[in-house]
Amino acid sequence: MEKKPIKIVTIGGGSSYTPELMEGFIKRYEELPIKEMWLVDIEEGKEKMEIVGAMAQRMWDASPYEVKIHLTLDRREALLGADFVTTQFRVGLLDARIKDERIPFSHGMLGQETNGAGGMFKAFRTIPVILNIVEDMKELCPDAWLINFTNPSGIITEAVIKHGGWKKCIGLCNVPVIALTKEAEMFGVTERDLVHQFAGLNHFHWHKVTDVHGNNLTDKIIDKMYVEDTGTPANIFDVKFLIDQLKEMQLIPSEYHRYYYMQDEMLKHGLEEFNGIGTRAQQVKVTEAELFELYKDPKLNNKPEQLTKRGGTHYSDAACECINSIYNDKRTHMVVSTQNNGAITDLPYDCIVEISSIITGKGAMPLNWGKFNSAERGWVQCMKAMEECVIKSAITGDYGLALQAFLLNPLVKSGACAKGLLDELLVSHKKYLPQFSDKIAELEADGVVSKDSVVMDLMVNGH
Amino acid sequence: MEKKPIKIVTIGGGSSYTPELMEGFIKRYEELPIKEMWLVDIEEGKEKMEIVGAMAQRMWDASPYEVKIHLTLDRREALLGADFVTTQFRVGLLDARIKDERIPFSHGMLGQETNGAGGMFKAFRTIPVILNIVEDMKELCPDAWLINFTNPSGIITEAVIKHGGWKKCIGLCNVPVIALTKEAEMFGVTERDLVHQFAGLNHFHWHKVTDVHGNNLTDKIIDKMYVEDTGTPANIFDVKFLIDQLKEMQLIPSEYHRYYYMQDEMLKHGLEEFNGIGTRAQQVKVTEAELFELYKDPKLNNKPEQLTKRGGTHYSDAACECINSIYNDKRTHMVVSTQNNGAITDLPYDCIVEISSIITGKGAMPLNWGKFNSAERGWVQCMKAMEECVIKSAITGDYGLALQAFLLNPLVKSGACAKGLLDELLVSHKKYLPQFSDKIAELEADGVVSKDSVVMDLMVNGH
Amino acid sequence: MEKKPIKIVTIGGGSSYTPELMEGFIKRYEELPIKEMWLVDIEEGKEKMEIVGAMAQRMWDASPYEVKIHLTLDRREALLGADFVTTQFRVGLLDARIKDERIPFSHGMLGQETNGAGGMFKAFRTIPVILNIVEDMKELCPDAWLINFTNPSGIITEAVIKHGGWKKCIGLCNVPVIALTKEAEMFGVTERDLVHQFAGLNHFHWHKVTDVHGNNLTDKIIDKMYVEDTGTPANIFDVKFLIDQLKEMQLIPSEYHRYYYMQDEMLKHGLEEFNGIGTRAQQVKVTEAELFELYKDPKLNNKPEQLTKRGGTHYSDAACECINSIYNDKRTHMVVSTQNNGAITDLPYDCIVEISSIITGKGAMPLNWGKFNSAERGWVQCMKAMEECVIKSAITGDYGLALQAFLLNPLVKSGACAKGLLDELLVSHKKYLPQFSDKIAELEADGVVSKDSVVMDLMVNGH
Amino acid sequence: MEKKPIKIVTIGGGSSYTPELMEGFIKRYEELPIKEMWLVDIEEGKEKMEIVGAMAQRMWDASPYEVKIHLTLDRREALLGADFVTTQFRVGLLDARIKDERIPFSHGMLGQETNGAGGMFKAFRTIPVILNIVEDMKELCPDAWLINFTNPSGIITEAVIKHGGWKKCIGLCNVPVIALTKEAEMFGVTERDLVHQFAGLNHFHWHKVTDVHGNNLTDKIIDKMYVEDTGTPANIFDVKFLIDQLKEMQLIPSEYHRYYYMQDEMLKHGLEEFNGIGTRAQQVKVTEAELFELYKDPKLNNKPEQLTKRGGTHYSDAACECINSIYNDKRTHMVVSTQNNGAITDLPYDCIVEISSIITGKGAMPLNWGKFNSAERGWVQCMKAMEECVIKSAITGDYGLALQAFLLNPLVKSGACAKGLLDELLVSHKKYLPQFSDKIAELEADGVVSKDSVVMDLMVNGH
Repeated sequence: MEKKPIKIVTIGGGSSYTPELMEGFIKRYEELPIKEMWLVDIEEGKEKMEIVGAMAQRMWDASPYEVKIHLTLDRREALLGADFVTTQFRVGLLDARIKDERIPFSHGMLGQETNGAGGMFKAFRTIPVILNIVEDMKELCPDAWLINFTNPSGIITEAVIKHGGWKKCIGLCNVPVIALTKEAEMFGVTERDLVHQFAGLNHFHWHKVTDVHGNNLTDKIIDKMYVEDTGTPANIFDVKFLIDQLKEMQLIPSEYHRYYYMQDEMLKHGLEEFNGIGTRAQQVKVTEAELFELYKDPKLNNKPEQLTKRGGTHYSDAACECINSIYNDKRTHMVVSTQNNGAITDLPYDCIVEISSIITGKGAMPLNWGKFNSAERGWVQCMKAMEECVIKSAITGDYGLALQAFLLNPLVKSGACAKGLLDELLVSHKKYLPQFSDKIAELEADGVVSKDSVVMDLMVNGH
Repeated sequence: MEKKPIKIVTIGGGSSYTPELMEGFIKRYEELPIKEMWLVDIEEGKEKMEIVGAMAQRMWDASPYEVKIHLTLDRREALLGADFVTTQFRVGLLDARIKDERIPFSHGMLGQETNGAGGMFKAFRTIPVILNIVEDMKELCPDAWLINFTNPSGIITEAVIKHGGWKKCIGLCNVPVIALTKEAEMFGVTERDLVHQFAGLNHFHWHKVTDVHGNNLTDKIIDKMYVEDTGTPANIFDVKFLIDQLKEMQLIPSEYHRYYYMQDEMLKHGLEEFNGIGTRAQQVKVTEAELFELYKDPKLNNKPEQLTKRGGTHYSDAACECINSIYNDKRTHMVVSTQNNGAITDLPYDCIVEISSIITGKGAMPLNWGKFNSAERGWVQCMKAMEECVIKSAITGDYGLALQAFLLNPLVKSGACAKGLLDELLVSHKKYLPQFSDKIAELEADGVVSKDSVVMDLMVNGH
Repeated sequence: MEKKPIKIVTIGGGSSYTPELMEGFIKRYEELPIKEMWLVDIEEGKEKMEIVGAMAQRMWDASPYEVKIHLTLDRREALLGADFVTTQFRVGLLDARIKDERIPFSHGMLGQETNGAGGMFKAFRTIPVILNIVEDMKELCPDAWLINFTNPSGIITEAVIKHGGWKKCIGLCNVPVIALTKEAEMFGVTERDLVHQFAGLNHFHWHKVTDVHGNNLTDKIIDKMYVEDTGTPANIFDVKFLIDQLKEMQLIPSEYHRYYYMQDEMLKHGLEEFNGIGTRAQQVKVTEAELFELYKDPKLNNKPEQLTKRGGTHYSDAACECINSIYNDKRTHMVVSTQNNGAITDLPYDCIVEISSIITGKGAMPLNWGKFNSAERGWVQCMKAMEECVIKSAITGDYGLALQAFLLNPLVKSGACAKGLLDELLVSHKKYLPQFSDKIAELEADGVVSKDSVVMDLMVNGH
Repeated sequence: MEKKPIKIVTIGGGSSYTPELMEGFIKRYEELPIKEMWLVDIEEGKEKMEIVGAMAQRMWDASPYEVKIHLTLDRREALLGADFVTTQFRVGLLDARIKDERIPFSHGMLGQETNGAGGMFKAFRTIPVILNIVEDMKELCPDAWLINFTNPSGIITEAVIKHGGWKKCIGLCNVPVIALTKEAEMFGVTERDLVHQFAGLNHFHWHKVTDVHGNNLTDKIIDKMYVEDTGTPANIFDVKFLIDQLKEMQLIPSEYHRYYYMQDEMLKHGLEEFNGIGTRAQQVKVTEAELFELYKDPKLNNKPEQLTKRGGTHYSDAACECINSIYNDKRTHMVVSTQNNGAITDLPYDCIVEISSIITGKGAMPLNWGKFNSAERGWVQCMKAMEECVIKSAITGDYGLALQAFLLNPLVKSGACAKGLLDELLVSHKKYLPQFSDKIAELEADGVVSKDSVVMDLMVNGH
């Protein structure tokens, strides 16, 4: 059958990741013939989009392919007739993430921008927006695939599929890719020489690995994790797991598990940065500013080396590969966020899980996982319950549910501490949380304010 | 990594299918370097094994490869150090199947040698034997894979995995292969151009198909089933399904479903054969005799055309491909009988299902299926419950459970009819049912005998 | 707390059962102070309602209590402000049941007016009507309890709760009451001396019994079933179950199970009646005519003995006791149709099951049951799937689903027989099946007609 | 049927609770005719048993009933022919509990003797002992009921039923009784005027309450909890829950939930006691010494008022009522630890839950609960997973699993803190943890010691 040229729309097009995305599409153009490429952003991100858009156009111009990058602030114009929509937007920009991180630290807790207090607030800000996008898509591009890599990727994907009713959605993450790359290197083989299976939630999965003869490699990998550099992603501080735990588990946890299994150590490190060079988001803000300076260079027409430092390496490549695999029914094995449908017995049927899947022309077909052992089961069930509270609260603005999510989240202290943190975050993110406006007004009337000076500065500056 | 040459053992080596198996291995020899090939049979099958063994040796001799076929009646000698064991034996030979078919017909019911009364008795005869084989394997080749294609393939596989505790077992069937071949032909494409997913039980599965763009083809296939030859396997009479049912189902049933959905029509046809040319097993017995005459020809060194008529086409090829995919971690998509582990939500976690899987170096990794709609769910749950009663009864010799299985089986009439059929089958298969010996003695004392003259002749002749 | 006097509404008030209902309320008046008692019927049933209404009024008048019976054809007038609504109506009256029974017999099948082809058609006729009643109740008596004893009681209750969204509904049946009465008699004790637990579906449940010391009585009951009269309800022909099956089961099946376990025997008996004295419904029609003659007697002011022959003994008493237990939080142990919510692990969470429950002021609290063994699990799952197809088809008019229900039902033959029966029933019940009107028109155009002369007479007479 | 006089055996008979138990049996003697009453203890507890045994005998002597108390150190002598065995023993006596509490506090964590680090160690010490008792019972009193109120009651009950294979076991707790007593008082009614349903785990359950008309009282109870004394058990510091959480939950949490929901506040209070008047166990030790002084008084022949301060009020009464309800099939509604069997959908089928049940002659019949909402589901699944790790580790001595349990427990800090606490507790409880002896030797070789001076004193003194 003849291949139909495709229209791709990237929401949050002004992101510093866009060049990696372009690189991924250029690399795959022969298989994936792009007709139109649209970058969409909002007024606040217009300048960045123009810089990165021009850079993107230069990348295509330097390639053998003729592709025109369209830049727009009009999302609906872009979505009309789209085949694939990728989402990489960040409501409130990096400044919101700085608050997500600094306010928890100022209360003596880890913010963790994906599944800690910070991640829960990122979900609160993002879910109403993405559900609006889905409504637009129903009208303007009802057959399109939504490839989400806005974090918290699993939570956002669950909101889209379960609550927005948009089934053609896949959530992506680079963490599994990094793990596999590292493990293949450990044994001096290629990824194809490993038989791996991942299951769990975004930033909260485990996996097992055998060689091509079915021999278990998990123990060997654990051993190597204690003698070698672990290849932890740039955005995670590298602390060793407790080896007795891993040996019992006989699974490899995700890099993000150290926030949970080794919370004290991660918190100590985080507080040092908070009180010193600034939190991860503050560091990223500097890196991003540098990147945009580079992107402005009219001679630059390929992805700069520095982007790797940014922390999201492989993310965009995963997105391109996923689109390619759908478009060409390539049946690539990928780890994606998709509907559970019983693949992980321990989790609700209709929730979203992150799981090894075959990406086909009709989307992700997950490999069945079955049951976890007790400890992993307990952890993953706890986290999924927390995610569900977050999503329902994000949609309804129910404060009690937000509090339940905070109390259930292992990175958040209990009782008055949880409430204190929740309240301050609500007030600080007021601008992006219309669903909580009544409660925020009440809290402000009760005198809740943000006390961290960096955050106060950001708030004064209008975010 | 270097490839280790392999030892393959085929139990029931005297089967007429053996040449197809040989053809499959010869075809794959470059990928699958066979060091030793053993055929095992019992005294009763010795003559056939010698004929087919000589034929098999001629096939290898005519190939570019030097492989020696070992023939033995000593199963333990063969199993020692085996890498793959395939099982294609038939306890009681074709004569037992003739009883499985004729006795039910003489009671006005379909015997159905795989999941009717006949299949239940085939399971009663086979399960004690295969559990003995498993015990031998634990001792003699503890790392071997057991590739079962003895029918009822799913039931036998469940006995091996769940009750025998042998996890490295995969059950095979040719029915899904035939369906896919047919459907690819319908659209003038190759199988790779279809995205298919099967789930259910052996000879009781359904599947759905899309094209590589994710467009549903089920409706088109249903329509074509009503205008074209359906490619029904040689051993199934071709009666059309009710189109309104298929349209509602939006799944393609297995060819064997016509025994259930169209039982009356199938029974009518079966009774005509029973009263006329003889049942399928009687026909096969003739075909087999012809085949063995051909095999005796010292000049014949390739699979004869006539084998296709035998009804098991693709079976052996599936076995070879499965072994190849395990040995070389080929990750082939195959439909196999393997542990459910939640892949089909509606069925017990620890039961065996027939399901689309990726065959890797560590065995079958099933694609998750999830839930069926109401009607298919009801059917498949009923059949699995029946299978469980059969297996437990086969192991314990519990007569009450055998009766429960008969009453639950939709092909068996209820009440006294069920009991009458069960009792006559028990008495007729006495020789191969040591687990039921006490009950059989009791039935004989009560005057239960077989009344069908063909069966009486077989019994007189010692089977 | 002071007791609020209550308003009770009985839909299908013209039923011959009404006097039993009155007797039940009179007996319980001290606990259950009825303020208003309304009987509702439709034009077709007006005459009967007037007869039975007068009779009912005489019963109250002969009691020490002053209760006025209101008769109306205006359902909405009656429902306004109701506390309890009982439903005992029969769409199409007994003539429709005669068709439900005779047409299947004329095709050589059991109609079985509760879960065979007849029961499925009774559901097709009743579900649209009861869902309308529920809509009225939402408006006119939003706090009322709906106590359903219109058959098929479990299916109707599932339609009301799951599809109508009316949670305050309990379905009742007299079969468990009869079983317990009989078993207490067997041991010469009272029901309170037995610890029993029922689970399954309406007319398709099993139960287990111990004495008050926890000693299992099941085996003893089975033995007694083979030496004594079994107390089978008047409407079920008494054929013995297969004792080997019961011994293996270690549960007591419902009396209706003999339609499934002993189908052949039941069919044979049914055909004798069909060809002789007439089917059960025809017999009941005669009994009813006699009853109404009695009811007309202005001197009769208590329930006549002959009502017992009618077959529904204990039904109305169960309804009164259920209402009493809710009103007074009596926590009576009753077997009722209520939401599963996991009480029977093997069945869908949101389906309706018939199960031992404590009837409290907030409704039925089921005792947990857990899992069935294989055979019972297979049967009950098959039946529930059939019920689900029936309900969805009744609501949508989906012909394919109706066909699926027929094929799945163990009392219906397969293939063309199933379709032939379904089609004739559709045409014969045309008047009461607006949801299937298009399909019926199509069938009539294709020449489908009813061939049984009794049914043809009924149709000519306008039903 | 005539009542058989019964033999009751109490293991841990030297407990200060024994007089309450005697009071309970004396109160119920007319219904529960005790023939023999045995108290069993070990050498370490002999003196206490003799004191409390004499006191118990005086209580019976002062009653109208003639019951002889047997005291023995020979458990097997006592168990022979027992009808009911109650377990209230404490391995390592109160000194072990002092370690369970003080060592965690010395690491800045809550010990929580039932489901925190302390409770996990109590389980480690108790499970091997109770499994030995079960083995004795299989031999000496195979029909006896085991009524456990040794804490952690749910965990111990799971070990007995699931791992010991002793099905006739019920675990008890006084927390639900206290909650109901309090709630009835709130409304000025009796418990019978409330329709309540509890579900969850021991010390980790929730419940809902309506009045007898089905009107939800949860909100009213929550409101009253914020205006009145909450009736928190003597052993739990009274801190208010977050009202927004309770309002969202629409369930009443157990009093012990404040350790989880309000951990910070509870920890602060606990540390104050730790650094001041001593932990709860130290306080209890003083109370107990006083109680035993009272018990020594040869004139005292009824339960002294001071026992209420001890913290276990209602415990023994619950035990007597449970035994009474089994013996007389009273069908009392009680909240007990029993097998789940699907009553709580969210938890494993074969685990033990604490749930509203009807206590009959055949044991506990739980009322079905179904599913929790997200947050409660996440909490209870996390806690059950932790319990499972504890039990498996207690049986196998698997250190990795113990570490997993610690990391999963919300009261234990993560990473090195968890391991540090685990290691110190192992070394400190060495005498009672034979299953961990190898690991403890290793830890001691690595220099792990207890640093808390109170604990060091206890260890020097031989515990």
